Amino acid sequence: MIERLAIIGVGLIGGSLARALRAAGAVGDIVGCGRALPNLERALALGVIDRFTQNPAEAVANADMIFIAVPLGAMRGVFDAIAGRLQPEAIVTDGGSVKGSVVLDAVAAFGHIPPRLVPGHPIAGTEHSGVEAALANLYQQRRVIVTPLPETDPVALARVQMMWERCGAEVTQMSVAHHDEVLAATSHLPHLLAFGLVDTLARLRENDEVFQYAAGGFRDFSRIASSNPVMWRDICLANRAAVSTMLARFGAEMTDLADSIRRADGEHLLDIFTRAKAARDRYVDGTKDETA
Amino acid sequence: MIERLAIIGVGLIGGSLARALRAAGAVGDIVGCGRALPNLERALALGVIDRFTQNPAEAVANADMIFIAVPLGAMRGVFDAIAGRLQPEAIVTDGGSVKGSVVLDAVAAFGHIPPRLVPGHPIAGTEHSGVEAALANLYQQRRVIVTPLPETDPVALARVQMMWERCGAEVTQMSVAHHDEVLAATSHLPHLLAFGLVDTLARLRENDEVFQYAAGGFRDFSRIASSNPVMWRDICLANRAAVSTMLARFGAEMTDLADSIRRADGEHLLDIFTRAKAARDRYVDGTKDETA
Repeated sequence: MIERLAIIGVGLIGGSLARALRAAGAVGDIVGCGRALPNLERALALGVIDRFTQNPAEAVANADMIFIAVPLGAMRGVFDAIAGRLQPEAIVTDGGSVKGSVVLDAVAAFGHIPPRLVPGHPIAGTEHSGVEAALANLYQQRRVIVTPLPETDPVALARVQMMWERCGAEVTQMSVAHHDEVLAATSHLPHLLAFGLVDTLARLRENDEVFQYAAGGFRDFSRIASSNPVMWRDICLANRAAVSTMLARFGAEMTDLADSIRRADGEHLLDIFTRAKAARDRYVDGTKDETA
Repeated sequence: MIERLAIIGVGLIGGSLARALRAAGAVGDIVGCGRALPNLERALALGVIDRFTQNPAEAVANADMIFIAVPLGAMRGVFDAIAGRLQPEAIVTDGGSVKGSVVLDAVAAFGHIPPRLVPGHPIAGTEHSGVEAALANLYQQRRVIVTPLPETDPVALARVQMMWERCGAEVTQMSVAHHDEVLAATSHLPHLLAFGLVDTLARLRENDEVFQYAAGGFRDFSRIASSNPVMWRDICLANRAAVSTMLARFGAEMTDLADSIRRADGEHLLDIFTRAKAARDRYVDGTKDETA
């Protein structure tokens, strides 16, 4: 049971955690904190939070659990604002899409790795954003990755894990570096390809015509190119090393495909397409239960 | 009104044309032709066709309209089988995803460009295939591109155009080369990226784990990697020149993105992502009516 929860950044991710914990009866008082006053007023009116402040230091003053759900580029500022203002027993966790940069930001602000910081990442979201899109069931049957460090207090880790389980999520642990590699492959690279594809087409001389003839497959494929540009700039910068490695691997694959097409090597093309289809079909079957 | 329609290749595309024309009362007798006997028997049982033969020459013998909907790699064989067997007034059209190779195959089989050949391409499909997936409304409010040549008989062109309009489609004309460029950009390149991405992930050492953490965005993005590998091998080989050009353009875009990430140029990344999001949002808004 969390007595006082502070949510820094009351959008889809932070608001959904508040709603889920409330629905589970797992939280007492919820204070919201953010920069935009109208958003905080809306969150209060919707009953997502009990009260709000625009000052992070004030938000965390009496909290036993703090959840930070701001864009990666704003993490450092939040850590700076709350360092030295926490209760001794307070646990801090976050929802950032990259974990290495969050840990570095915390070290820069606190001067060391805070033992009661539990870096985390709920693998959930919808194409909508903002507190109005927050859902009590957003995390049900979704994965949450926590990336504890050697310095992490096991009690703090257990409490964060329990918090997510009360929201219906399945929690798994991995190292910070491994998290950032896995997400570079499954999320960051696909987003870069979608942005890159749509921009390539937009730059063609006949771009209006081209988009007219793009059918259903293209619509699905390019959906993630409608994601928030600022958030994705921050992710690319925060996860530079792992994203660069994945871009190089993908580049080698596409060079191989382009060479096969140039030399009309149908056998090699068929091998690649068949292997990709098998992986995709196996993967979709294997995770059917998560798509509902 | 078509008196005798011959459909060579009775799958999703061919079967849906038969169903749509029947529903519109725009066709008399429909003969199906294909290599797999069980599929033809199923098409007959479903009422998609009135009778069938496995011999293309026999199928076209009395037909006034012939629709060829076989994989691109099988086009040449069909043209060889029907050359010299057509009624003088018979019109031939097709549903191939690449038009340059279809015209070359026809020239190779007929010895010249048949004036009553109208190359065409319905921009439609579902993730399913086969005659059981055929729908009378598959082409409603979808685009069909016809690519007449200087040699094409205007009466034949008008009749093919009318046939598709009776199915509820919107028909547009473009040159063979332009069609192949537009489709390389909007369909062939995205499919190659999806195959390439899924194969890149499948080849990672920890591929099982990676796919476990792939969330909703990845599922949408990679759906087209479940497409038929043989069909896509044929398309890549048939449209080598235009696909190679688009792969090179996309490669340059990704090199630019990778360089920006390496040198942490957030401003340039934001420019690209913002332009891509604007194009995607404009495109989705602009074609809302087609997605229903």
